[in-house]
Amino acid sequence: MAISAAEVKLLREKTGAGMMDCKKALQESNGDMDKAIDYLRKKGLQKVEKKAGRTTQEGIIQPYIHPGSRLGILVEINCETDFVARTEDFLTFTKDVAMHVAAAKPIVVSREQMSQDVVDKELEIYRAQAREQGKPDHIIEKMITGKLEKFYQENCLLEQAFVKDPDKTIKDLLTELISKLGENIVIKRFVRFQLGE
Amino acid sequence: MAISAAEVKLLREKTGAGMMDCKKALQESNGDMDKAIDYLRKKGLQKVEKKAGRTTQEGIIQPYIHPGSRLGILVEINCETDFVARTEDFLTFTKDVAMHVAAAKPIVVSREQMSQDVVDKELEIYRAQAREQGKPDHIIEKMITGKLEKFYQENCLLEQAFVKDPDKTIKDLLTELISKLGENIVIKRFVRFQLGE
Repeated sequence: MAISAAEVKLLREKTGAGMMDCKKALQESNGDMDKAIDYLRKKGLQKVEKKAGRTTQEGIIQPYIHPGSRLGILVEINCETDFVARTEDFLTFTKDVAMHVAAAKPIVVSREQMSQDVVDKELEIYRAQAREQGKPDHIIEKMITGKLEKFYQENCLLEQAFVKDPDKTIKDLLTELISKLGENIVIKRFVRFQLGE
Repeated sequence: MAISAAEVKLLREKTGAGMMDCKKALQESNGDMDKAIDYLRKKGLQKVEKKAGRTTQEGIIQPYIHPGSRLGILVEINCETDFVARTEDFLTFTKDVAMHVAAAKPIVVSREQMSQDVVDKELEIYRAQAREQGKPDHIIEKMITGKLEKFYQENCLLEQAFVKDPDKTIKDLLTELISKLGENIVIKRFVRFQLGE
């Protein structure tokens, strides 16, 4: 299999292994980068492991700890350059998002990330609620579609109304910031720890 | 099915629903608490959702942000009383653990939490490395057991050498603290965000 110079370069950056080792690893792995890393590790290039997760993007990790320390948030927001990551606008946005997550309890960043299990369980509950209210079947399906839409709006960070300005969604805020700073900005991930949960 | 008063009380605490509703929900769910909560939600007791995750333990959520904000940690450490959670010793411990996680990159708190997939992949790599070195089969199995033990010690938080005092493990530190404060203390969970990982 033909391996491009760009692929070899990427594997070298990820692992620190030599050029010929990287080329061979990619050939043996049919061009699969993860398998090539495993191949190099098997050959004894143990250092690989440490470099594999190295930083490739700019942005910041922002915490928010609610007074009393019983609730804590960590958010990662990415941008394209370190310059933008240090601007007042970017830093204000990251703090606002972290505080928003504390108050609004999103489950995921965007609806594509909501697990099918969670969606199925919600649908089952809506259907049972609608039957409990004695609604006819042809109305039930319409009702549950509307309810699921509302569920997404309440539980996906990007679709939630911003707690400090409920006329805007987090997505609206993000779009404004991208337009102002002229760089792509992504809310990559968040975590929300509440004591004893 | 007979439902105990204690079970009804627990479901009431979790959901805020009335006593008779809780008893019926438990009977319909054969005593399964989670199913009983779903049952109450289906019956339209929507508030259930909000109270289900309420705090039952003491302790604190502790962040650590590395200078530059490219690396952030969030740790939850539980104890039995709020009094202990406010002591200097407890707070020092939580800060030490958060900083340790930043430096030592554990994967899980304890080895029981390490996923079988990760263990299997490590074993496969050790086996291939040993073969590469031309070791005979009867030695290989002994070698990989030793290597896996080392992997646990390097990647499970409780077994790691404490970065500020490598003669002690985190487990040692925790045991000392429990003995000093006279309360059970548990490192419940942590998360480690590194930019672009």
